[in-house]
Amino acid sequence: MSSTAAATKWVYDFAEGSRDMRELLGGKGANVAEMVRVLGPERVPAGFTITTAACVAYMAAGDEPAELAGQVAEALARLERVAGKRLGDADDPLLVSVRSGARQSMPGMLDTVLNLGLNDRSVGGLAQRTDNERFAWDSYRRFVQMFGNVARSIPGEVYEQEIAARKRERGVRLDTELETADLRALAERFQALFAEHTGEPFPQDPGEQLRQAIRAVFDSWLGQRAADYRRINRIPDEWGTAVNVQQMVFGNKGDRSGSGVAFSRDELTGAPQPSGDFLANAQGEDVVSGVRNTQDIGTLATLMPEAHGELMTVLTTLERHYHDMQDVEFTIEEGRLYMLQTRNAKRPAQAAVRFAVDAVAEGLLDRSAALETIDCDRLDALLHPTFDPAAEFSVLATGVSASPGAAKGEIVFTAVDAVQAAEQGRETILVRPFTEADDVAGFHAARGILTSEGGKASHAALVARGMGRPCVVGASELEVDLEARVVRVGDRELAEGTLIAIDGSSGVVTLDDVALVEARVSEHFQTVLEWSDQLRRLGVRANADTPEDAAKARELGAEGVGLCRTEHMFMAADRVPKMRAMILADSEHERRDALAELLPLQQEDFEGLFEAMGERPVTIRLLDPPLHEFLPAESELIGAIEVARVENSEQLAELEHTLERVHALAETNPMLGTRGCRLGVLWPEIYEMQVEAIARATQAVRERSGPVPHVEVMIPLVDYERELELMRELVERVASGQGLDAGVDYTVGTMIELPRACFVANLIARHADFFSFGTNDLTQTALGFSRDDVESKFLATYLERRIVDRSPFETIDEPGVGWLVRLAAWVGREARPDLKLGICGEHGGDPDSVAFFHRAGLDYVSCSPYRVPIARVAAAQAAIAHRS
Amino acid sequence: MSSTAAATKWVYDFAEGSRDMRELLGGKGANVAEMVRVLGPERVPAGFTITTAACVAYMAAGDEPAELAGQVAEALARLERVAGKRLGDADDPLLVSVRSGARQSMPGMLDTVLNLGLNDRSVGGLAQRTDNERFAWDSYRRFVQMFGNVARSIPGEVYEQEIAARKRERGVRLDTELETADLRALAERFQALFAEHTGEPFPQDPGEQLRQAIRAVFDSWLGQRAADYRRINRIPDEWGTAVNVQQMVFGNKGDRSGSGVAFSRDELTGAPQPSGDFLANAQGEDVVSGVRNTQDIGTLATLMPEAHGELMTVLTTLERHYHDMQDVEFTIEEGRLYMLQTRNAKRPAQAAVRFAVDAVAEGLLDRSAALETIDCDRLDALLHPTFDPAAEFSVLATGVSASPGAAKGEIVFTAVDAVQAAEQGRETILVRPFTEADDVAGFHAARGILTSEGGKASHAALVARGMGRPCVVGASELEVDLEARVVRVGDRELAEGTLIAIDGSSGVVTLDDVALVEARVSEHFQTVLEWSDQLRRLGVRANADTPEDAAKARELGAEGVGLCRTEHMFMAADRVPKMRAMILADSEHERRDALAELLPLQQEDFEGLFEAMGERPVTIRLLDPPLHEFLPAESELIGAIEVARVENSEQLAELEHTLERVHALAETNPMLGTRGCRLGVLWPEIYEMQVEAIARATQAVRERSGPVPHVEVMIPLVDYERELELMRELVERVASGQGLDAGVDYTVGTMIELPRACFVANLIARHADFFSFGTNDLTQTALGFSRDDVESKFLATYLERRIVDRSPFETIDEPGVGWLVRLAAWVGREARPDLKLGICGEHGGDPDSVAFFHRAGLDYVSCSPYRVPIARVAAAQAAIAHRS
Repeated sequence: MSSTAAATKWVYDFAEGSRDMRELLGGKGANVAEMVRVLGPERVPAGFTITTAACVAYMAAGDEPAELAGQVAEALARLERVAGKRLGDADDPLLVSVRSGARQSMPGMLDTVLNLGLNDRSVGGLAQRTDNERFAWDSYRRFVQMFGNVARSIPGEVYEQEIAARKRERGVRLDTELETADLRALAERFQALFAEHTGEPFPQDPGEQLRQAIRAVFDSWLGQRAADYRRINRIPDEWGTAVNVQQMVFGNKGDRSGSGVAFSRDELTGAPQPSGDFLANAQGEDVVSGVRNTQDIGTLATLMPEAHGELMTVLTTLERHYHDMQDVEFTIEEGRLYMLQTRNAKRPAQAAVRFAVDAVAEGLLDRSAALETIDCDRLDALLHPTFDPAAEFSVLATGVSASPGAAKGEIVFTAVDAVQAAEQGRETILVRPFTEADDVAGFHAARGILTSEGGKASHAALVARGMGRPCVVGASELEVDLEARVVRVGDRELAEGTLIAIDGSSGVVTLDDVALVEARVSEHFQTVLEWSDQLRRLGVRANADTPEDAAKARELGAEGVGLCRTEHMFMAADRVPKMRAMILADSEHERRDALAELLPLQQEDFEGLFEAMGERPVTIRLLDPPLHEFLPAESELIGAIEVARVENSEQLAELEHTLERVHALAETNPMLGTRGCRLGVLWPEIYEMQVEAIARATQAVRERSGPVPHVEVMIPLVDYERELELMRELVERVASGQGLDAGVDYTVGTMIELPRACFVANLIARHADFFSFGTNDLTQTALGFSRDDVESKFLATYLERRIVDRSPFETIDEPGVGWLVRLAAWVGREARPDLKLGICGEHGGDPDSVAFFHRAGLDYVSCSPYRVPIARVAAAQAAIAHRS
Repeated sequence: MSSTAAATKWVYDFAEGSRDMRELLGGKGANVAEMVRVLGPERVPAGFTITTAACVAYMAAGDEPAELAGQVAEALARLERVAGKRLGDADDPLLVSVRSGARQSMPGMLDTVLNLGLNDRSVGGLAQRTDNERFAWDSYRRFVQMFGNVARSIPGEVYEQEIAARKRERGVRLDTELETADLRALAERFQALFAEHTGEPFPQDPGEQLRQAIRAVFDSWLGQRAADYRRINRIPDEWGTAVNVQQMVFGNKGDRSGSGVAFSRDELTGAPQPSGDFLANAQGEDVVSGVRNTQDIGTLATLMPEAHGELMTVLTTLERHYHDMQDVEFTIEEGRLYMLQTRNAKRPAQAAVRFAVDAVAEGLLDRSAALETIDCDRLDALLHPTFDPAAEFSVLATGVSASPGAAKGEIVFTAVDAVQAAEQGRETILVRPFTEADDVAGFHAARGILTSEGGKASHAALVARGMGRPCVVGASELEVDLEARVVRVGDRELAEGTLIAIDGSSGVVTLDDVALVEARVSEHFQTVLEWSDQLRRLGVRANADTPEDAAKARELGAEGVGLCRTEHMFMAADRVPKMRAMILADSEHERRDALAELLPLQQEDFEGLFEAMGERPVTIRLLDPPLHEFLPAESELIGAIEVARVENSEQLAELEHTLERVHALAETNPMLGTRGCRLGVLWPEIYEMQVEAIARATQAVRERSGPVPHVEVMIPLVDYERELELMRELVERVASGQGLDAGVDYTVGTMIELPRACFVANLIARHADFFSFGTNDLTQTALGFSRDDVESKFLATYLERRIVDRSPFETIDEPGVGWLVRLAAWVGREARPDLKLGICGEHGGDPDSVAFFHRAGLDYVSCSPYRVPIARVAAAQAAIAHRS
């Protein structure tokens, strides 16, 4: 159709496109073209699309490609023929909209110009043809305003001030109360403003208007707002945007006209009845802006039954055509239905799950395709209590959504207070600047955790997610004064005991007594999970340290425990003193005595865990954290010593001894210090006690109840082959002393969480039955990012400066950490083809990371119990995507 | 020669071997065989070697290989024929020694039995044949003792007690005062002891004696002492040891007999005159044991001119044959010279250098071969003052040799005291438990540094090495009490001001006023360095932060500065307050004001450096360490605040503000926190100031003196391509503002010191003119080892348990860190073939690591100035080794 066959085709009529041409025509252009194909040209206002390639060429050259003007002129001529009207015609002008449309939807980010084609002459023609002078002048006023704002960056306030002034002058409140003369005066004033700001007259030539509007859309792609949106949504700058030029239709031509948006199914629940909003005698922007109260789409059946019937048919047709729930925009002009846009509907988790199940039942989709319509990231909302969606409340502060779910309770500032309150049956929210190991008891006792510092990977966030406790961190508007025991927010002071509510899914904090809605795995969700289990290849386990965690994990479908952190068992109030005695021991002999006291407790822990898991596998990691984590903080001790000195207390010597030990164990970079298997090498008696406890628990549970889990003993932080060799010797020696056989009763493996280990994984695999990738620590070491420090100190700036697009602790860093995982998997299996490979970092519950682990050939992922359902679906989606 | 052709040959006559059979025959066996070939059979006592393979088979099976006994018997028969004597013969017995001999020398580690073949009957024959009854019984007594000790593990004390008792009984002091009857009684008593301890009679059958002695040598390979030696010297356990059975010759047969050791050149200086020790009428063990005062080898010329002449000829012959300086053992039996052993001589650096130069002059070796005879690790001693080798002193304590060179001075405990003392012209040693950034000023002022904690990679060691200050760390016998201002060693208390001396090359600490000997690059060393420069491919630069360092680096042959750490410039006393003002600034505006004050100082620093380096390249790293390193410690501040509060001081508010900032900047793992280019991203104004200072300094020096270095601006700690892109933009923007052109006046590159960066080095290389591997940090992250913590906390145990054989901060960890370097070099050059590659970690001065960097294809290494000569030689050796 192009006049210059050899030149690039920059412009496509709607009738030439299809949904497969999204890259070239953008999402909107491709969908409009597709609607022309599916619904027929009479259902879609005619128009054409200028390709994203033209935008790319424009960005590269700083100017439109040479042939573009000619191609636009030709397309416009064709449009005029189809419409039977001419742009700028003084009697019956063709009006067009000029809209952006990138490959991927960027709502509100790019610019739009409506009613283009009006000028001082054609406005009269429009008035005459529509027999509505006010409508014509309002349209012209809007166009002049929008064009100046969009095409020449004249600030919106400039226009708003003029309108406000005019309303004051006329003594009216609403725009709709302005009369034709007012609107005419405004259109003239706006043209004068245009000339003032640009030094040029307002373009009366519609061709020139069109040229400038197209440039404006191209330029809007490069604007800050769009750039920010792309960064957050990981849309490449290089894509560019298409421009759609479409004949205007008018929903504001009287009672047989109107505009609306509709979903092919209920937008909130997914139930198979269309939903949507409609406004009679209104344009699309009125529906969206919320100036007038919209009506439910159902009322259209009464008001305009014919159009309603057509719309229902269109929705069914589009849904069947796209095999997905649709979100459409439409306009009815004097009884005639025009479809302006369609796209796959964004939907909340509940609706997504319902649609997937119904779509299979209706034969619209097969199970794989149905699963692929679900956005895993949203499923979290189904697994935790939330604020009642109907509730109204005022936001006190907003922080980072660190662990999903909503909770409310009285403000407490210490773990001790939280525990006391829980004993008295009071519900609390633990509020702190940040949290440490000492606070963990409070996590159990409180309903939720709120901190003023930290990010998604802070201690509070990690522990809360692990326990499934709602948590908001980094709510920086709060100033938590632990000394004064108050929270300050601006001028306000909140005392201990004040009721506060948090929503860990949204990061919102409020003082209102919002109703909470409990979560449950609905029948539809259950169906989706069952299908996922049939389709996925990756196993899904849970990270669980207690029988309660394990029971929750089983309930949510975990096939085993992928990580039991034995140190969390020592954090409990009755264990800490014994653990400290062990650490403070001056000789191996004393240390062994202290360990002997810990042994029965540890055994009890394991028995509970084993009974909860039945015959499922349980991976137990031997002690990992640096020992000083179990000791009181230096500043706390110094204070206690001062007091003891003044009071001449008997405890002075003991306190001083503890301080000495704290100093001896202190490390500059504890993350890179004496932890993991280094503890086992230095003090083998600690690991010996733990293995003995595992072996005894296995025997006890076997005698008592029969089935016992397959235990996988996991050695953390291995760098060298020899470390694992030594620790494996230790495990086998102690276990066989308790009558357990390696390979039969248990296996021995290692965390792979250091870059060196990935390079020598073939050597390490000689002594390992399994690897479990510790992607948290692997991320810390591969990137040189301290999890505790990075998010609070510089991640925000890194996101802003577009160095990263999300936290590497949230989604695995494929170029670095991902390659280390691939490498270790590859050479590990080379040395030992039956090596079992899992991953137990936070990434195990992140859908994008799960997809990577599937592709990398791992056997299973392990995540916190509440992420298990998400991992199950994500694993199925990965299998489907990777298969096709 | 073997009777069973199909069976493995486990035994080789000396005449069958050669030096090329070291793997099979061990070092001693191969060298003895070689001597037979070179000097003729009459010069070497006859014998045979049981192979290392036999030892390996013995270790695997727990028993000798089946054919071994027969092969030994056959070899023994041949030996008896050659010797004309028979083992156990009652009239004229053949006596043999049984000695170990591994592939690589393990002095004193494996066991030896002498005089084997004696029994109750043959002792009489020996007495008769030698006409020396005392000699015969002393030989027998020694054999019974040695055999029981070596072959059956009877403790040496058991025998010593018997000898002591006998001496008491006889009222004599020396062994030599015992008479024949005593010796005879002892031989009998020792046989009885043997029976008591083993439950078996002492074997009278010489064949059985031989069998047990051979087993004993095999077993000694597996003993703890040998295992420890192998670990330290990285000798594989799998090698096993050979066993040499050799006819005994006797240097104690009268005045025409004797034993000695000799070197083909002066063992200390390398001067071309043989040196050595000799004892007339004595056996080899008397020479070594130091019981009698030995005579210089020169005296042999007078005493036994013929044997002396033969020895001189033999030394020349062996040196020419082995093309290296020889270290031999010999015995003269009644005027006849026997050579017992020869090997390439270990030699101190001075001798090594002298030999290399002389050997080339003499035509013995070409330059490459001469360079290969030098042990680079020893060269350090030539570059630093040492304790006078002739001085006698008593050792107070021993620590880790952290930075070479000797120093003495008064004990001081703080940097301030060291600075004050220096101003008064007093020399000091800074003594601390450990050091921190605040102490660096004291490093400049003191003559040496001594700490009770830390290892080779501790702060004290690193900074001291960087400055070339002698340093001993981890002298754990010292208890440094900073409060009481004393050092305790056992019961002793050393006050401030006490004279103390340290030798950083040996780790020795003494209170004696030992004389120090200054180092200078000798003429011979200079020649070796010049040859090295001709032969090496790797460039050698120095890490230098000051004009003084740079001048020293040039003097020692550095071709440029590979790393100027700009932060060290801010540690100086006049800079710290300004730096702190910058860090404490509450706004960008205030921060810029503070930076403006630092700018001229920083510019001055660079001018000095540029003038010192002339036109050589200088790599300047922009600010790297976390900012809190420049602030006072928390505990110090809290104390100061207490005082200020009590005194109602005006400084209180400022102190509290500082403490707040210290808290805000505090990080759990500073090594993985807000440092490197993260600082530049967060606070670009800091890097902008630094670049401006570089640019201004370049212009100023150019105007003043003409030649300026090629400046390489280096961005530290890059993870992401985008980080470098942003920082490069910053550098180019600021530099061009000062009239400098990228690529002409300077280049921009990055440190590669994080694992992630290695994987994406191809992307990073797009924005880099050069990479400099920061192998210190790369080791920390790849291994998860905090440099500050690892060596002090668990490295010792890791060495002991054979997990590592040396610190990975000393020699590069090839399997992990090495692969990361290779990877980054590979993909970096793939993206940019002209990418310049260097390394500026501590490893740049370690010979083994330099060899790796050569093989990995790097362009240059950069190390502390005092390691430059070592790197030059190591680089040449690497080129020679890699070429062949």
